[in-house]
Amino acid sequence: MLIRKKRGHFLEDFRVGQVFCHKVGKTVTEGLFNAFTEFAMTTNPLHKNLHYARRYGFRGLVVPSGLVMNVVFSQSVEDISENARANLEYIDMRFGVPVFIGDTIEVTTMVLGVKPSSREPDRWVVHVQTTGYNQDGEVVLTFQRKVQVWKGNVAAPVQGTALADIPTVPCQLTLPSYDPACDYYKLAHLTNADTYFEDFALGDVIEHSRGRTVMTDHMVLTAMLDNTSQVHTNQFLIDQDPERYIGGKLIVYGGIPFNLCLGLSCPDVADNSLGDIRYASGRHTGPVFAGDTIFASTEIKGKRDFPKRSDLGVLETILRGYKFVRKNGACEKMEVFYLERELAVKRRSHYARSKHTAVYDSPTGRSQELPLQILAES
Amino acid sequence: MLIRKKRGHFLEDFRVGQVFCHKVGKTVTEGLFNAFTEFAMTTNPLHKNLHYARRYGFRGLVVPSGLVMNVVFSQSVEDISENARANLEYIDMRFGVPVFIGDTIEVTTMVLGVKPSSREPDRWVVHVQTTGYNQDGEVVLTFQRKVQVWKGNVAAPVQGTALADIPTVPCQLTLPSYDPACDYYKLAHLTNADTYFEDFALGDVIEHSRGRTVMTDHMVLTAMLDNTSQVHTNQFLIDQDPERYIGGKLIVYGGIPFNLCLGLSCPDVADNSLGDIRYASGRHTGPVFAGDTIFASTEIKGKRDFPKRSDLGVLETILRGYKFVRKNGACEKMEVFYLERELAVKRRSHYARSKHTAVYDSPTGRSQELPLQILAES
Amino acid sequence: MLIRKKRGHFLEDFRVGQVFCHKVGKTVTEGLFNAFTEFAMTTNPLHKNLHYARRYGFRGLVVPSGLVMNVVFSQSVEDISENARANLEYIDMRFGVPVFIGDTIEVTTMVLGVKPSSREPDRWVVHVQTTGYNQDGEVVLTFQRKVQVWKGNVAAPVQGTALADIPTVPCQLTLPSYDPACDYYKLAHLTNADTYFEDFALGDVIEHSRGRTVMTDHMVLTAMLDNTSQVHTNQFLIDQDPERYIGGKLIVYGGIPFNLCLGLSCPDVADNSLGDIRYASGRHTGPVFAGDTIFASTEIKGKRDFPKRSDLGVLETILRGYKFVRKNGACEKMEVFYLERELAVKRRSHYARSKHTAVYDSPTGRSQELPLQILAES
Repeated sequence: MLIRKKRGHFLEDFRVGQVFCHKVGKTVTEGLFNAFTEFAMTTNPLHKNLHYARRYGFRGLVVPSGLVMNVVFSQSVEDISENARANLEYIDMRFGVPVFIGDTIEVTTMVLGVKPSSREPDRWVVHVQTTGYNQDGEVVLTFQRKVQVWKGNVAAPVQGTALADIPTVPCQLTLPSYDPACDYYKLAHLTNADTYFEDFALGDVIEHSRGRTVMTDHMVLTAMLDNTSQVHTNQFLIDQDPERYIGGKLIVYGGIPFNLCLGLSCPDVADNSLGDIRYASGRHTGPVFAGDTIFASTEIKGKRDFPKRSDLGVLETILRGYKFVRKNGACEKMEVFYLERELAVKRRSHYARSKHTAVYDSPTGRSQELPLQILAES
Repeated sequence: MLIRKKRGHFLEDFRVGQVFCHKVGKTVTEGLFNAFTEFAMTTNPLHKNLHYARRYGFRGLVVPSGLVMNVVFSQSVEDISENARANLEYIDMRFGVPVFIGDTIEVTTMVLGVKPSSREPDRWVVHVQTTGYNQDGEVVLTFQRKVQVWKGNVAAPVQGTALADIPTVPCQLTLPSYDPACDYYKLAHLTNADTYFEDFALGDVIEHSRGRTVMTDHMVLTAMLDNTSQVHTNQFLIDQDPERYIGGKLIVYGGIPFNLCLGLSCPDVADNSLGDIRYASGRHTGPVFAGDTIFASTEIKGKRDFPKRSDLGVLETILRGYKFVRKNGACEKMEVFYLERELAVKRRSHYARSKHTAVYDSPTGRSQELPLQILAES
Repeated sequence: MLIRKKRGHFLEDFRVGQVFCHKVGKTVTEGLFNAFTEFAMTTNPLHKNLHYARRYGFRGLVVPSGLVMNVVFSQSVEDISENARANLEYIDMRFGVPVFIGDTIEVTTMVLGVKPSSREPDRWVVHVQTTGYNQDGEVVLTFQRKVQVWKGNVAAPVQGTALADIPTVPCQLTLPSYDPACDYYKLAHLTNADTYFEDFALGDVIEHSRGRTVMTDHMVLTAMLDNTSQVHTNQFLIDQDPERYIGGKLIVYGGIPFNLCLGLSCPDVADNSLGDIRYASGRHTGPVFAGDTIFASTEIKGKRDFPKRSDLGVLETILRGYKFVRKNGACEKMEVFYLERELAVKRRSHYARSKHTAVYDSPTGRSQELPLQILAES
């Protein structure tokens, strides 16, 4: 018997209230950690410098939010979106306990709603809530998403329904406490001096200076996440029916620009952050293909106190990713990513000395003037 | 003095009965592990989920058979096949003790025979037996292979000979024992429900649904294995004399499609396997180049009991890899890989409950109906 | 307010005697270690075989000199050369204590001089001294370099000055001591038999046989090092003004061919080395682009005793990297890298038996003749 195994579900397979316990699970190895943290050019020392991370009370290098999101999301792909046309929106994405190298993540997803589309009867919108847990059962991330899923059989009867109430998943950023006895300022040269909570002003828009070209290496990263959606890694599939696929070519998996925009913005916005708190809404507003160079900007939308932590503030931002495309001979800016992002940012008052600088003058170059003891002491 | 160092041996260097203790050796780091396991899109949790692997009695994440094969094979390349034209066949490849991250593999090869070719006097067939050991001297893999090696000096006298008897290398798949007290079924949602030993029927041919395009990243993977054969990574060499090389371009090292076909077949055939036992015969039946999309299928050839393990069965299969090529305007299927493969597959009777499912209904979405305790319990 | 954050310094920002304590720092994960060690096709077992490294007295796999250099150098890029046009020279690069997986490297740089150029008033030469420390404050590497830095504002006043005396940074290769009781010869099959100190003759030029084509994967490696120089990874930047950039395209970060040439030369020169001691001078003498195939050669310039270590000798070499370019229909060799390199090389007298070989004859193939006990014993 010839069996054509097709993994993943089609629209008609989803029932509101269903909970998928996704397969496999994923242990974060140093290989996976390195590939994603570095691809994004992340600059927060919590993700790069073990010595710094431990001094801040974490038990190891902290897995960046972009990788946590990618690991949890990708575990849900086979069941939820292997047969999807497009990922429409991330909603209320909240981070819980930090993830470390060696942690094992398992993921569940509940179907919240199935919404018909009269205009496109062959692809409806599925609304789900996905939650990732570590090996101790603690929530590391939870989010809703809306995804446009193909019908397997266009004639199959599907009813549009939704849960009356969306169940609440308790999930709140957990951070080590502030230690008044710790000489944090001795490590202050490892981060930028202008990215403390006090440095941000409402309405500011920061154009991050660096760009990063995505090459076909996006396929390796996608496979590394167990993301089985074929539109990212199966050129033959695209070639068979290019018109069915956006751009008629392999599209870069959205988690790659997501991760990259977080990285590109890191030196200006997040290198004095202790963690991302919540993404209220996120969308891939334009497609990314191999060869595109991605840029990012951050708009400061709000600032508020962090509950019960006088050493931190909550920074409310909009992170945008964009690329440039040629149109009629001109070079046009095109948005590809939109993320409402809240971060927990350190206050200078608690972590650095006002006069701190990472540059010292030693006009004669004599070694006794060198501040190398900073390293030795810390 | 100008010295042109040429590593590797030519046909006239081989003597029957020789044993090469290959150089360097290789410790499996988390970086190597991650690159290969993930490139192949392996889905068996033994290779991905530390928690699962430990519950099954392994001391860590298990290195997949495709990586074990690649590490052992590649250690032999410089001595045996750096100056080869083609790898003709793998014979009687048997797995021994499992390999874990941190293990160090060293490899020896014995020359079993040198067989003349009257048709191609400049390239004869060398028959060898290669064996890999871990740091405790345990055999992790042994196999024979036949390889077509160039003569360095076409006029050099070489005699075709062979050992009368091929020495037997003791090597048998070693697995943790079945623990009747272990609640394996609590982890059953992490693997597919339709890939237990009971699910396979003789004669079935399973077309695995996913394809994976190989890009120039194959060169990074090849270097990562210490495979020094220049036809995979030296474009200049090819450009100097394209007609000497298959396809006139860099050919993808065979270990890459080998590994990839194992991975592509994993969700349908091997995600409830505890390990590959033996590959009776394997061949690269067509060349793979950057840009090709690889697919795989598995034919079920036989089923038998696993000696002294009522919880397992031996599944006898043929794993085939293929790609599509354009010929006269049409798209033709072309086989690129053939492997006779035996796996040790879990029986549902011992590892899952008959009614087990990874999807639960919670029609109202109330949290008390959610099966999240599955995660907490396990 | 629109803020265009530009990290890195321009020529007018540098003052002689300044010391930069560079940001972030970097922990060497197994992922980073694997990517660089393997990309270069390094063959010295100290970097590949944990068992061997420990027998030689190291506490783990040793990070290769090419990766130590790349980590320390790259930490200095944002402050010193993100806005540079070209890296002109490495001077007096000396290695200190070995680096191991898990070590965290932090880096400082002192400005030694700023030298005007009358011919190119928009780009002057900055002379710096960069030093890397591990988590215990020990020096792992120190070097000077000269780099051509763009002026941000061509009209800005800059004075050419230099320190009267260059401060000395104590830094000397630290190696485990020789253990007369250790049976090193039992591991001798893991390295080449013709690369002991006794094997090198003054004036020899060794053409290393292997070449390695660099693909666009160079961008991943560059990002992995935190090298933020945009000319390596931002295609859009180049496309905006190709004439401003060497070759009009993305140029491969120099640390990649640096690392690669060390790797290509390893089997012939460095696989019986215990470490690189010093690079008196190094230069990137030609640009490297994606698609180029890199080759290397080593010239033996001198041999001397290693102070207080009768088991070692100091090998003085020149390592050259080159590629081939088409010119007027012909294929011309073009040097791309030049490095004066001193290595600490093992003497055969202390580490191997004169008659040692890695190949044994077992004419009948009987297992009792096999030297497998070598593995078991060692």
